Amino acid sequence: MKEVGLGILGFGTVGAGVVEGLQKNGDLLAERTGLRLALRAIADVDLERDRGVSVDRSILTQDAAAVVEDPSIDVVVELIGGTTVARDLTLKALALGKPVVTANKALLAEYGDEIYDAARKHGADLFFEASVGGGIPIIRALREGLAGNRITQICGILNGTCNYILTRMEDDLLPFDQVLAEAQEAGYAEAEPSLDVDGLDTAHKAVVLAAQAFGCSVRMSDVLLEGIRDIDAMDIEYASELGYRIKLLAVLKAGDAAIEVRVHPALVPHGHMLASVGGVYNAVLVTGDVVGETLYYGRGAGREPTASAVIGDIADAARNRAAQTPGRVPAFVPLQDTPALRPTDAVRTRYYLRLSLKDAPGMFGHVADILGAHGISIASVVQKEVRSGEYVPVVILTHQAEEGAFHAALREIDALPEVGAPTVRYRIEDFD
Amino acid sequence: MKEVGLGILGFGTVGAGVVEGLQKNGDLLAERTGLRLALRAIADVDLERDRGVSVDRSILTQDAAAVVEDPSIDVVVELIGGTTVARDLTLKALALGKPVVTANKALLAEYGDEIYDAARKHGADLFFEASVGGGIPIIRALREGLAGNRITQICGILNGTCNYILTRMEDDLLPFDQVLAEAQEAGYAEAEPSLDVDGLDTAHKAVVLAAQAFGCSVRMSDVLLEGIRDIDAMDIEYASELGYRIKLLAVLKAGDAAIEVRVHPALVPHGHMLASVGGVYNAVLVTGDVVGETLYYGRGAGREPTASAVIGDIADAARNRAAQTPGRVPAFVPLQDTPALRPTDAVRTRYYLRLSLKDAPGMFGHVADILGAHGISIASVVQKEVRSGEYVPVVILTHQAEEGAFHAALREIDALPEVGAPTVRYRIEDFD
Repeated sequence: MKEVGLGILGFGTVGAGVVEGLQKNGDLLAERTGLRLALRAIADVDLERDRGVSVDRSILTQDAAAVVEDPSIDVVVELIGGTTVARDLTLKALALGKPVVTANKALLAEYGDEIYDAARKHGADLFFEASVGGGIPIIRALREGLAGNRITQICGILNGTCNYILTRMEDDLLPFDQVLAEAQEAGYAEAEPSLDVDGLDTAHKAVVLAAQAFGCSVRMSDVLLEGIRDIDAMDIEYASELGYRIKLLAVLKAGDAAIEVRVHPALVPHGHMLASVGGVYNAVLVTGDVVGETLYYGRGAGREPTASAVIGDIADAARNRAAQTPGRVPAFVPLQDTPALRPTDAVRTRYYLRLSLKDAPGMFGHVADILGAHGISIASVVQKEVRSGEYVPVVILTHQAEEGAFHAALREIDALPEVGAPTVRYRIEDFD
Repeated sequence: MKEVGLGILGFGTVGAGVVEGLQKNGDLLAERTGLRLALRAIADVDLERDRGVSVDRSILTQDAAAVVEDPSIDVVVELIGGTTVARDLTLKALALGKPVVTANKALLAEYGDEIYDAARKHGADLFFEASVGGGIPIIRALREGLAGNRITQICGILNGTCNYILTRMEDDLLPFDQVLAEAQEAGYAEAEPSLDVDGLDTAHKAVVLAAQAFGCSVRMSDVLLEGIRDIDAMDIEYASELGYRIKLLAVLKAGDAAIEVRVHPALVPHGHMLASVGGVYNAVLVTGDVVGETLYYGRGAGREPTASAVIGDIADAARNRAAQTPGRVPAFVPLQDTPALRPTDAVRTRYYLRLSLKDAPGMFGHVADILGAHGISIASVVQKEVRSGEYVPVVILTHQAEEGAFHAALREIDALPEVGAPTVRYRIEDFD
């Protein structure tokens, strides 16, 4: 049986998971692919730490560049993460015409243009299923299964840590800080949580998805980005009473006139499938102009699910390497008629607003007048019980209007002397 | 740009959808694949009927065999359906080394061994994404995305007609016959509905999935098969009160000792994602030994979703044809160590039982004794209000036991003089 030599760069959690998966299902993979996937080198700075898998010590090395250059290595698996060393080694491998399998969303989001271009120029394969949605084969679905579709919308829950935190806040009525602390203890959140909770990781994944779905290059700075750090359990409770759950969503839309790529907490109706995605799970709703709505669900992170995606890519890369058909499905296909990004102010959504109003006659009329003057119409209003102090929480669900109108209206509203605190606002996604 | 010639056999609903999709997104497909997919022939017995798409009449023909043989046709798209003409033409195309794209689950379920073998022998590609789950790219997920996994379980809602009927029965508390009649009027069910409602279509799809997931050849006669025709709205209501929804499921399990392939109505807990799949949608829950649980959801039938899957396959077939790499991913990979099918009597599940008992002292004790004697323990019992006559409906949820034990116990129970009607029984799937 033909052998394909693998070199893994980065022997961390995912790297160990990949080694374990290859050991466990090596024979199965050989039957399925007709190829023997031979692990020939693992590079890491730390060669001593116990990863819970046994490997022949002779394949361990600290010299990652040598692994990339080694002629017996046919497929390079980049699991170092980050955008420095990983970028250099990925570019080096591609320049040698070697296929690269990576789980690195930050690298693709920050340096996608350069990396995709290197793959194209050198006729080398680049696979990155594990970069979005953990074990869910979403990249493959977009670039092959749904190839006959113009993708019009993607809505995804793409960060397991955030979804775990929001699920626990709702289930146990706990504040963000407490749930985060517990998640950190349980290993569901990093000690430095900002990549997750400020939405950066989700934005990285949104940029990767936008390239696949829309054939366009979106910069991180173009993504409308809000995280979950400031979410008050009170709003989760009010949203629930109104029939919504708050989720951190990546929302990608492609209309005739413009595309949108945004990451923010949003109210999702209880009856919608995305609302029922709990805990560390991820889900991606993809709408195509032929297929309609499809949804993909699974564990979005962690050693095994990520390893599953990496190994699926390794099998694909090995098949192409053995058949000498690299670039069979290009890593990135720029599409001709992709419209430009919609300016943030022109994005249209519905809003959940929670105002702190002094309980004085006529107050609500002032607010309604300001909203109306900016073209924002009100769908429903609920005045809640006073929780503390002299200010009453008033929750307004609006109809659709433009972001710019909301910003202008809320500036005026928050300047009213009878408003006790900045208005809390979350977008509503109804999936109509 | 390189052209790949397409010939479509069967210009029915799906055929017209494929033509429409190719016309709508032909340029997009050319950008994505680097190939021009050129529709060169459409064969059908009826050349006059209006399909709602405009095609050059010169490519229409009644001679399907000539299309298969035409050297300008590189990819054959079989959308005739059935297992007679479709079988001959598929085998003819494969014998010529031409790739075949098909949506034909009946053909693969009945003659899979022959068809897969012909593809292998002649080194020709066979793609059949559209045969299961409509537009959901589930075949691709199994054979590529999850290639690194041993698949341990698949549970699917695979027939949109049945799911529509069951959803309406529950939502509107209507009897089966009325909902079926309305579904037939609305075009959601065939005039001859038995392929759908008796579970045959779902069983065809289960057999196709078993081949992909377990690498084994399952015969239709091996599938434990029950349809939804006899479901009483009363049981849907009782199940709902107990926290379950009744769905027609395909259940495939692969343990160390045996595999199971069964199709039957089953109680699914309300909180489970499969319970929230309503109307004509399909969903497939796939569990792999590395990835864990993943789920795939979308419209399971109809012109556009099926066309989406067919076009994705055409793109794949065209790529392989252009790169001269047929058989890159084989249609079927028999796996060495797949265990044998578990005998039906040895299948273990939980059961929902509805007994019709005369309201006499000690009656329930008799029933419990019989169940106990067969090793079946009771999880809960609800005695319902008498609906009509002298018999009381008593609903029992059991713990797990073997099919054989249930059959023996129910034979004894139903022979009791105080039992007014055969006991109604449905399996419970808890997904533990």
